[in-house]
Amino acid sequence: MDDGMLIGQGFDAHRFAVAGSSRPLWLAGLFWPVPQGVDPAHYEGIEGDSDGDVAAHALIDALLSASGLGDIGSLFGVGAAAHGAGMHGRDMLHETVAFMRAHGYEPCSASVAIIGNRPKVSTRRIEAETVLSEAVGCRVSVTATTTDHMGFTGRGEGIAAIASALVRCAGDEG
Amino acid sequence: MDDGMLIGQGFDAHRFAVAGSSRPLWLAGLFWPVPQGVDPAHYEGIEGDSDGDVAAHALIDALLSASGLGDIGSLFGVGAAAHGAGMHGRDMLHETVAFMRAHGYEPCSASVAIIGNRPKVSTRRIEAETVLSEAVGCRVSVTATTTDHMGFTGRGEGIAAIASALVRCAGDEG
Amino acid sequence: MDDGMLIGQGFDAHRFAVAGSSRPLWLAGLFWPVPQGVDPAHYEGIEGDSDGDVAAHALIDALLSASGLGDIGSLFGVGAAAHGAGMHGRDMLHETVAFMRAHGYEPCSASVAIIGNRPKVSTRRIEAETVLSEAVGCRVSVTATTTDHMGFTGRGEGIAAIASALVRCAGDEG
Ligand SMILES: [Zn+2]
Ligand SMILES: [Zn+2]
Ligand SMILES: [Zn+2]
Repeated sequence: MDDGMLIGQGFDAHRFAVAGSSRPLWLAGLFWPVPQGVDPAHYEGIEGDSDGDVAAHALIDALLSASGLGDIGSLFGVGAAAHGAGMHGRDMLHETVAFMRAHGYEPCSASVAIIGNRPKVSTRRIEAETVLSEAVGCRVSVTATTTDHMGFTGRGEGIAAIASALVRCAGDEG
Repeated sequence: MDDGMLIGQGFDAHRFAVAGSSRPLWLAGLFWPVPQGVDPAHYEGIEGDSDGDVAAHALIDALLSASGLGDIGSLFGVGAAAHGAGMHGRDMLHETVAFMRAHGYEPCSASVAIIGNRPKVSTRRIEAETVLSEAVGCRVSVTATTTDHMGFTGRGEGIAAIASALVRCAGDEG
Repeated sequence: MDDGMLIGQGFDAHRFAVAGSSRPLWLAGLFWPVPQGVDPAHYEGIEGDSDGDVAAHALIDALLSASGLGDIGSLFGVGAAAHGAGMHGRDMLHETVAFMRAHGYEPCSASVAIIGNRPKVSTRRIEAETVLSEAVGCRVSVTATTTDHMGFTGRGEGIAAIASALVRCAGDEG
């Protein structure tokens, strides 16, 4: 067993809401308004109990997994202490890190790769990184890519995110 | 070049066996019996030369990759020293770590994200983490998620897993 | 905040070029000639502005993300300083690491999992690892797997790659 740096892997995917449901789009801790000139019916948000922020959710799984503290379902699921219904990704991240610290873990670094056709994450990447980094308390980096019209992300059915995190036992000097 | 901590990424996906093939379901080092009230024909195991445990296989790739010692195909494939046919994921992990140690590498931390509709990993997450951690000799964490009925995992065709691992050169004090 | 080891996650996917387009296949820093006995029309390369090397691109995203320096689009995209059109993955990796070092970051370890039906990466895995490791200046490991004919990679529509990297602030002794 090793008491130093711990690694966590997270993944999440959610479906875009059906056209006309007027669901706001939240991703990577940010609200994404309908771009000018785009029909709002073709710019729906993401389904989910919470705001459907796959980037935040994948990061939460990566952080909890690195800490050996379960996953987003055990912390925020139905019946859990901090039920995530209606919560924004940023607030869920904040609660996740408070939970980690209460158990002696400190986030060191995290990164999330967002896979999807929209929104255009690159236009607000630094803003997303700032919001997520503040929520987690360490640097969180964001990359974004598409799948060349292949698969469910390429067909625009939904968005996916893959995250990884490094966590340290508090007090451990590494 | 850096002789300290090394990172490895692994991925695996396998198809559920065809209905009626009576293949037992193994995942994350555990056997998953058919739940009460479920038609066994709709609860088939996973195809593959071995037991089809995508979580174990993705972890093996992550561990071997971090160690620079190839991948599951080079260690357990046809013609390899330790042919994996019929082997359970737990035993393959055990052999993987013995192979790593013989080459001077020590696993520090590992994490695997399982993507699929079934089994309900959350009901036995801690049990899976215990079995996998014992097999690897360091903390192995498990998260599980679905893809909201999107893609091959969402349609229930198969299961996928993404793993990452941290490995250290033995003797290295970090 | 932690100034030690930083982690980055990368993902990329590209489509195979249409049959008959005679596009050469580049992957993991290597050129893959049409195998003997295979119809070249069924062994097309990968589409993309650059050479379509998903393994190199995923590694670039992982390295840049770990360094907090954006992603492949911000470094090599249209209008960027080092436009990647026509560039090979190996050269893009080399420029990525030069850019990282100019900003005080040093790659420590990287790993990429390639997901696709062809080419048969296992036949030249060590060669790929050697080329990628030389380009990055630290050990880069490669694993390869398929998705049992499921999803866009399983249907042979394209290739995907998931990468992770560890990066250190230069001068940091860890
Ligand atoms: Zn989610
Ligand atoms: Zn497998
Ligand atoms: Zn690319």
